[in-house]
Amino acid sequence: MRAEFIKMHGLGNDFVVLDARQQPLPELTSAIAREIADRHTGIGCDQLILLEPADGTDGADFAMRIFNQDGGEVEACGNATRAVGLLAGKPVRIRTSAGILTAIPAEAGIAVDMGEPVFDWEAIPLSYPMDTLSMPVGWEDLARPVAVNVGNPHAIFFVPDNDAIQLDILGPLIEHDPLFPERVNVNVATVEDRHTVRLRVWERGVGLTRACGTGACATAVAAMRRGLTEREVIVHLPGGTLQIVWQPDNHMIMTGPAQESFRGSFEWEDFA
Amino acid sequence: MRAEFIKMHGLGNDFVVLDARQQPLPELTSAIAREIADRHTGIGCDQLILLEPADGTDGADFAMRIFNQDGGEVEACGNATRAVGLLAGKPVRIRTSAGILTAIPAEAGIAVDMGEPVFDWEAIPLSYPMDTLSMPVGWEDLARPVAVNVGNPHAIFFVPDNDAIQLDILGPLIEHDPLFPERVNVNVATVEDRHTVRLRVWERGVGLTRACGTGACATAVAAMRRGLTEREVIVHLPGGTLQIVWQPDNHMIMTGPAQESFRGSFEWEDFA
Repeated sequence: MRAEFIKMHGLGNDFVVLDARQQPLPELTSAIAREIADRHTGIGCDQLILLEPADGTDGADFAMRIFNQDGGEVEACGNATRAVGLLAGKPVRIRTSAGILTAIPAEAGIAVDMGEPVFDWEAIPLSYPMDTLSMPVGWEDLARPVAVNVGNPHAIFFVPDNDAIQLDILGPLIEHDPLFPERVNVNVATVEDRHTVRLRVWERGVGLTRACGTGACATAVAAMRRGLTEREVIVHLPGGTLQIVWQPDNHMIMTGPAQESFRGSFEWEDFA
Repeated sequence: MRAEFIKMHGLGNDFVVLDARQQPLPELTSAIAREIADRHTGIGCDQLILLEPADGTDGADFAMRIFNQDGGEVEACGNATRAVGLLAGKPVRIRTSAGILTAIPAEAGIAVDMGEPVFDWEAIPLSYPMDTLSMPVGWEDLARPVAVNVGNPHAIFFVPDNDAIQLDILGPLIEHDPLFPERVNVNVATVEDRHTVRLRVWERGVGLTRACGTGACATAVAAMRRGLTEREVIVHLPGGTLQIVWQPDNHMIMTGPAQESFRGSFEWEDFA
């Protein structure tokens, strides 16, 4: 069958969006997701987004599933949520495996309610109990991270100069540490002032990316809990800038750009 | 304006094909080519292929221009010629800046007449005269290459084990050596028997690629001239296999696969 798709990106973090509400699609297996994500022989993307109809039980307008380049399904992705919010063109409630996410068109792009952060060690999850605001662990130049779950697990390291960290080497080491039974996204951040943070992210199952929305949220609330910033911060990533507000109701609001790159179609059987 | 394109690949060497015969297109500048070739914010490709109408002077069916990821226009690309041959679906004569290329549908894919190799030092071009069949130069483990122009300039090094060579380090060094005033494609090859060669290529302006059609031609004729192989060889590249025949009339015939990945459209102004 001929399948339609939309290629989008948020701050250079790029997505193939398949809309199963508009067209009936065969089952999206890990193997097919990998083939589609291949940048030379497939369509090419960091993540594949599958939109599905709502089941009417939870007030969601539709459901979103996300697959990484390696074919594994993941819980949430802030950049993907903004991209899907842009496609919708109006406020929408999106069901994900990390809960309901709300996306609202705003002046500076798309504002996404990323829900509430969880700092309990069981919820990150970690392998054993410890203080998640200053974990007594370290890997070379990286030590005493904050751990937080914002729909997916993050470790955040605050360092004097995050550009100086060899994240391509330390990222995979920390991602696969037995301390994190579901692996972890690795954030390396430098606080510039009480409203500004610089951030680089090693994404679980992906590697170094130009921007990671959940990483920006996780880093912002970590900085706020550490007392390093106010509750409204600008996060500068290699691919661009996100604004994170941690509201009094405990919800994190992320605002930033999203863009459509092109639209196309392919033979499903070519990748199956 | 909305521009249509076809995404294709030959042995994993991937192309965005823009057909200016089917649709009027604005001028394709280097800057726009770079934006389109960006794998995160553009469409993503190793090379961009622009098809243009023939001018009726030389018997060509149409003309093909090729732009690398870095926006620079290049003379010829064997994989691209096979891809365009597949699109045509019948024997065609394609005008390129390296001359007329013929593509013919065959059993093992698309057969392309890649024209005649030139071994004259001025034609490679080199900066000063020397024996192009065994150049008295070297870079670490790589020495005494063959130089040949097959529409674009190539240096071919024969080594006992081409997988052991650090081509990501030596490739750019050799590409930019002042010996090659128009830079050079770097081929590292191991002869397995008189009909079989293994090859890795550092492509000028691109880097390491899974397969390079002109590199396979250049390496095959270099091996034949050195007396290492017969005039019909199978070249194994990381992305797959090509057959090269050096005919008695001095023409090189390359046969191999090509494939369409997907079709799509984009707003030209997004990348301009």
